[in-house]
Amino acid sequence: MQPTVNELVVEQFTRSLGNLKNILKKAQTHAQDRKFDENLFLQTKLAADMFPLIKQVQIACDTAKLTCSRLSGTSAPSFPDDEKTMTELYARIDKTVDYIKTFATNDFKGYENQKISFFWNPGKHMMGHDYVISYALPNFYFHLTTAYAILRSNGVHIGKGDYLGEMQWKS
Amino acid sequence: MQPTVNELVVEQFTRSLGNLKNILKKAQTHAQDRKFDENLFLQTKLAADMFPLIKQVQIACDTAKLTCSRLSGTSAPSFPDDEKTMTELYARIDKTVDYIKTFATNDFKGYENQKISFFWNPGKHMMGHDYVISYALPNFYFHLTTAYAILRSNGVHIGKGDYLGEMQWKS
Repeated sequence: MQPTVNELVVEQFTRSLGNLKNILKKAQTHAQDRKFDENLFLQTKLAADMFPLIKQVQIACDTAKLTCSRLSGTSAPSFPDDEKTMTELYARIDKTVDYIKTFATNDFKGYENQKISFFWNPGKHMMGHDYVISYALPNFYFHLTTAYAILRSNGVHIGKGDYLGEMQWKS
Repeated sequence: MQPTVNELVVEQFTRSLGNLKNILKKAQTHAQDRKFDENLFLQTKLAADMFPLIKQVQIACDTAKLTCSRLSGTSAPSFPDDEKTMTELYARIDKTVDYIKTFATNDFKGYENQKISFFWNPGKHMMGHDYVISYALPNFYFHLTTAYAILRSNGVHIGKGDYLGEMQWKS
């Protein structure tokens, strides 16, 4: 048996976006404990010319959303990047998860032959299979881990367990 | 058509470990240009209580190696964590890639029912499918991105394109 694309992208993104939300909540608690505005974290960066936390979260959400729409050959709803608070970022994550959960295995039938194009590379496309392996999954985790790294290097008490989330242990 | 586990893990890990090696080489060039020992990067961290670069690379390699052995129900060779130089880290990446490339689609038959256990959680196991989705892929990219972030925040001139590597564009 091979994994379905649905399991692969919807299951991974849903899990990991939930973990991201928990990590952001720990950052909020950290800020409240130290009596500073948690929204200061939104503009925090790892390097001057990298994206700040808010953008890392927005791109992680958009990668999840667009992976599902592109592989199913459908159009994704537009989620404008207008969040200004941690609470609004939670809502962005929630609506992304609600959207990607609408997909079922059959929606991705023929995903490997979808031609995926990007506005920044006109006239070119990637095939669906290459897109999943070479772009969608690594890009999603890049932004998730960078969001984690921004908060972790700013003293928020989080660890790998928060990033990975609950494991399905059996005995 | 669904992606094979072989495509999913071997293809992703091979690509991404190659990208990691290129990123390390850019760090080496950066150090040489500025006339400092490139091996100073090996102990660089994002936070005092996080693992340094060398350990991020070793864990990324081990995650790739152990994912293949665990999902195929075989034993992996031991690669001791005794690297001391950037050049030795390249060799660690190379032998990991050589090893994971020995796997073919058939080796992962029944992967979803493999019981995956960890020495740090005795008496418990995870099923192969859950292991891929919830542990192997996110853990691999966590260490890859953290290695990138350590170098990026230390001024090495790398960007997302180096992390993602060459894309399979078609026209």
